[in-house]
Amino acid sequence: MFQTFTATTSPEQGPPRLTALRAEIAARGLTGFIVPRADAHQGEYVSPHDERLAWLTGFTGSAGFCIVLPDVAGVFIDGRYREQVKGQIALEAFTPVPWPETTPESWLRAQISGPAVIGYDPWLHTPDEIGKIERGLAGTQITLAPQVRNPVDAIWPDQPAPAVGQVRRHPLELAGQSAEEKRQTLAAALRAAGQAATVITLADSLAWLMNWRGSDIIRNPVVQGFAILHDDARLDLFLDPAKLRGLPEEPGVTCHAPDAFEPALRGLDGAVRFDPATAPVQVAMALAQGVEGPDPCLLAKARKNAAELDGMRAAHRRDGAAMVEFLCWYDAQDLTALTEIDMAVKLEACRAATGQLLDLSFDTISSTGPNAAINHYRVTEGTNRRLAEGDLFLIDSGGQYPDGTTDITRTLPVGRVARNRRAAYTRVLQGMIAISRARFPRGVAGAHLDALARYPLWLDGLDYDHGTGHGVGAALSVHEGPVRLSRVSTLPLEPGMILSNEPGYYRAGAFGIRIENLVVVKEAEPLGEPRPWLDFETITLCPIDTRLILPELMTPEETAWLNAYHARVLDEIGPLVSGEARAWLSQACAPLG
Amino acid sequence: MFQTFTATTSPEQGPPRLTALRAEIAARGLTGFIVPRADAHQGEYVSPHDERLAWLTGFTGSAGFCIVLPDVAGVFIDGRYREQVKGQIALEAFTPVPWPETTPESWLRAQISGPAVIGYDPWLHTPDEIGKIERGLAGTQITLAPQVRNPVDAIWPDQPAPAVGQVRRHPLELAGQSAEEKRQTLAAALRAAGQAATVITLADSLAWLMNWRGSDIIRNPVVQGFAILHDDARLDLFLDPAKLRGLPEEPGVTCHAPDAFEPALRGLDGAVRFDPATAPVQVAMALAQGVEGPDPCLLAKARKNAAELDGMRAAHRRDGAAMVEFLCWYDAQDLTALTEIDMAVKLEACRAATGQLLDLSFDTISSTGPNAAINHYRVTEGTNRRLAEGDLFLIDSGGQYPDGTTDITRTLPVGRVARNRRAAYTRVLQGMIAISRARFPRGVAGAHLDALARYPLWLDGLDYDHGTGHGVGAALSVHEGPVRLSRVSTLPLEPGMILSNEPGYYRAGAFGIRIENLVVVKEAEPLGEPRPWLDFETITLCPIDTRLILPELMTPEETAWLNAYHARVLDEIGPLVSGEARAWLSQACAPLG
Repeated sequence: MFQTFTATTSPEQGPPRLTALRAEIAARGLTGFIVPRADAHQGEYVSPHDERLAWLTGFTGSAGFCIVLPDVAGVFIDGRYREQVKGQIALEAFTPVPWPETTPESWLRAQISGPAVIGYDPWLHTPDEIGKIERGLAGTQITLAPQVRNPVDAIWPDQPAPAVGQVRRHPLELAGQSAEEKRQTLAAALRAAGQAATVITLADSLAWLMNWRGSDIIRNPVVQGFAILHDDARLDLFLDPAKLRGLPEEPGVTCHAPDAFEPALRGLDGAVRFDPATAPVQVAMALAQGVEGPDPCLLAKARKNAAELDGMRAAHRRDGAAMVEFLCWYDAQDLTALTEIDMAVKLEACRAATGQLLDLSFDTISSTGPNAAINHYRVTEGTNRRLAEGDLFLIDSGGQYPDGTTDITRTLPVGRVARNRRAAYTRVLQGMIAISRARFPRGVAGAHLDALARYPLWLDGLDYDHGTGHGVGAALSVHEGPVRLSRVSTLPLEPGMILSNEPGYYRAGAFGIRIENLVVVKEAEPLGEPRPWLDFETITLCPIDTRLILPELMTPEETAWLNAYHARVLDEIGPLVSGEARAWLSQACAPLG
Repeated sequence: MFQTFTATTSPEQGPPRLTALRAEIAARGLTGFIVPRADAHQGEYVSPHDERLAWLTGFTGSAGFCIVLPDVAGVFIDGRYREQVKGQIALEAFTPVPWPETTPESWLRAQISGPAVIGYDPWLHTPDEIGKIERGLAGTQITLAPQVRNPVDAIWPDQPAPAVGQVRRHPLELAGQSAEEKRQTLAAALRAAGQAATVITLADSLAWLMNWRGSDIIRNPVVQGFAILHDDARLDLFLDPAKLRGLPEEPGVTCHAPDAFEPALRGLDGAVRFDPATAPVQVAMALAQGVEGPDPCLLAKARKNAAELDGMRAAHRRDGAAMVEFLCWYDAQDLTALTEIDMAVKLEACRAATGQLLDLSFDTISSTGPNAAINHYRVTEGTNRRLAEGDLFLIDSGGQYPDGTTDITRTLPVGRVARNRRAAYTRVLQGMIAISRARFPRGVAGAHLDALARYPLWLDGLDYDHGTGHGVGAALSVHEGPVRLSRVSTLPLEPGMILSNEPGYYRAGAFGIRIENLVVVKEAEPLGEPRPWLDFETITLCPIDTRLILPELMTPEETAWLNAYHARVLDEIGPLVSGEARAWLSQACAPLG
């Protein structure tokens, strides 16, 4: 079992740790210090070594930071965590601050009059982040000061060591391109731009570039480390060599100890590209001639090649079969005797039974009734809820397999569900179908398509406070940049990109709905004008509950899409499941009148 | 008759003028010179005094520029004018350059090796524009040099004098807010931002701020002039006082000669805001402490108040009645005996018959058959085409009335129209209805809604190469910034903003379709979630041709919208038209089965 259901926070330890940190801050002559949730690789998950924010404050959310001042310690949390934070931190010591409504710079201006020096760890923040705070403090006497020795580490006696996860090779038949070829391609782009080298600091970029998969952190098979790619395609790597035990040496790739990274940066000649949105401030400061530009792996990694797409399709068939086993089991249970944890446990068992599950791709969101209205809900023993008659049960989950990463959400009825909930479910489904059916010219970005998924909801006065979709890695991170189906994503969609398509609707305190498939951007069959048209191939194969649909709300085209999808699911997944599940699947895939 | 149909270009005069300009350029020690289509107010139309580009090259399009070098003179034109330009310029002297695909900076880099000085008139270009060219020339020996005495003016013996159009007051009952109040509101914002003054250079901003309407240029009742608004709400105006003959003096407003503008800028103390996207370079250079920021009138002008909206609604009822008289006449004609010019003449007569028409709001686009596929087509005696059986006839037009500005497009059948054209017409209509019916939360911008209008077309492999809509002024410019329904417009929509809703489809060499209504952004009636919902009120009232619709392609909701719209048109316009037109209108507004 990968997932656990224990609550890991201990709020009572926060105040003494805060006192110790304040002493350390004062001893350094600082007014305050910023403790982010991030590590040097700016990933979504951090290893126990980097859980400084949780250790200090008790807050375990996936984003946020704490600014410690002499008399106040603000814990900045976004809308998802406003409730959770209250149960996780000692409120007499820490003050929740709504973020991004309140920016760190405006909060500092309000708290401090006169001169002040706020420390930060230059390995844990990006130049974009620090630059924004500094611009916001212009005209005040508040300055920021990098602290290469992190003061939290200095007072954390039993801080876990940095992760030393074993690295395995991602085989060429799944990667589709050798690491050598990837380096040559990126090096050619460096030469064309007149750049001598580029710095790689993102852990999924490194894993992609080297055709490696790692185990430094859970759920994401990335490899934490730094690299310098030179314009002649040589690569200098900086990570604990113990991670690479048993791997053959790669010509043109030299491994150095992590300590050698900064001196190597200082020794570089010529223009060196770094990504101000993702690299540590310390990288930018160490470069004699730094040039800003996006991490060159980002777009290359986002455009999956044929081998990666084949792997993802295979993983989705396997995962779809596991989902069907779970859904068949679900329909045979006395649901009101079961809990959210029971569901998560059963689903993980179905995935494990494939014999190929390496990890979950994220902690399963198993939520019923009002819990399903909480974005990013994670069930614990404390919150675990029994399914109740009339509930909508929402389960958002995914697996890491050798050949691919999955992410799927289904919303299921518990007994008879009220008509208004079924209407909302139908609107969510219509939005999801609108994206699935979309055909659009090259140049269109997520910002332009996002509203298509919302329009059926909007017309009924409904909406959802998250993007419609995120990028997904190929046997890599389930949340992968840089493209999204979101109002803020203006990067054009390109063939090979994989995105989630997951509109939802949430009524606080009552119910939540989300339906999610993954889609691949592809060149569309010719139709109409001879333009370069794109469309989506849906790769998630699993029935969408038709009992919750109000068929009279659907257009004939929407119903036709759903029926064609279900015919395909039956055709592709039917042969992969047990006899009982096959019978269930035939039923679940029956065309909607 | 406001509109004329003569072609005004004389290509043969270009070469000798170019020779004279080259001599002038050489005498000043310059390598080249940029001749833009713009004037100092960056409006869409320019007065005859500022028609330097047309005078020099013969090209009369609404956008473009010429860069004159010793051996080549590039005429930069966008996609709309690629064909037109070939008939308007002497191709042995001028070279058309596809723009923006080819930027001026890349063209200059390709044409010039070694040192060069390119002149430009700092009154006719914005800092954003010149800054972009200069950045693109970095690393070359090509520099730009401002020329306050324009070399074209120096060799243009019969250059018309600057426009001195009479200004009239825009009455308070239509403006809804006194000029004094507007100045006070903007001055308070200046004080809050710590700015001592702001510079106004846009002609429609000046007209809006002073509650004036002018006659310096055709189609747009703007007032060309400059102004400095101080943080105590005093306004210094710089324009020919002859324009203001008969107008009472306004307390707090001082009128100066145009020549006094630059010295006044140089004399300003403190931070002075100017708009780098719209102000002349010369303004930025004259300010001791210039601060960049958008023209403060832009958003205030875009958010129409209740009086402005009432005026616009009244103008649209009047204009709708004129349109209905025209459409009724159209249906009674032997169409194949008539031409595009006949249609434009008749429609203008219908508008003039209201007794309130001050001007057209733009030259009527009257186009049939393949001409309708040409974006921004303007009929002349040379291009005038007779309507033909099976044609789609597209007419895009509008009027300037004392109380409002209109802009409407209808596409009409000429006899029996082929099924594929009717299908495309239906898709265009579905897109237009999708925008009309939209409800969306605050924060949504044109970039997010644009795809809603395209989706029905995209699914059939069709699209259109223009935005879905533009801002519209209240008894002011028919194309008004800053909001648009377009992929690039990320400014959130706000109540009171008026936009056109005009999807289309164009098949080159065959036919063109566009359907356009104006809509007002308004707070929506409560429905669903208690969020600040917005929706659109359609203010254009005129039947949409139902004979071209393939009803089986429409959803029941779309048909219901159309029928409700037609019921409203019949109800509001019926009482305003002649008996014959009323009978026609009842027919045209009959519900679609």
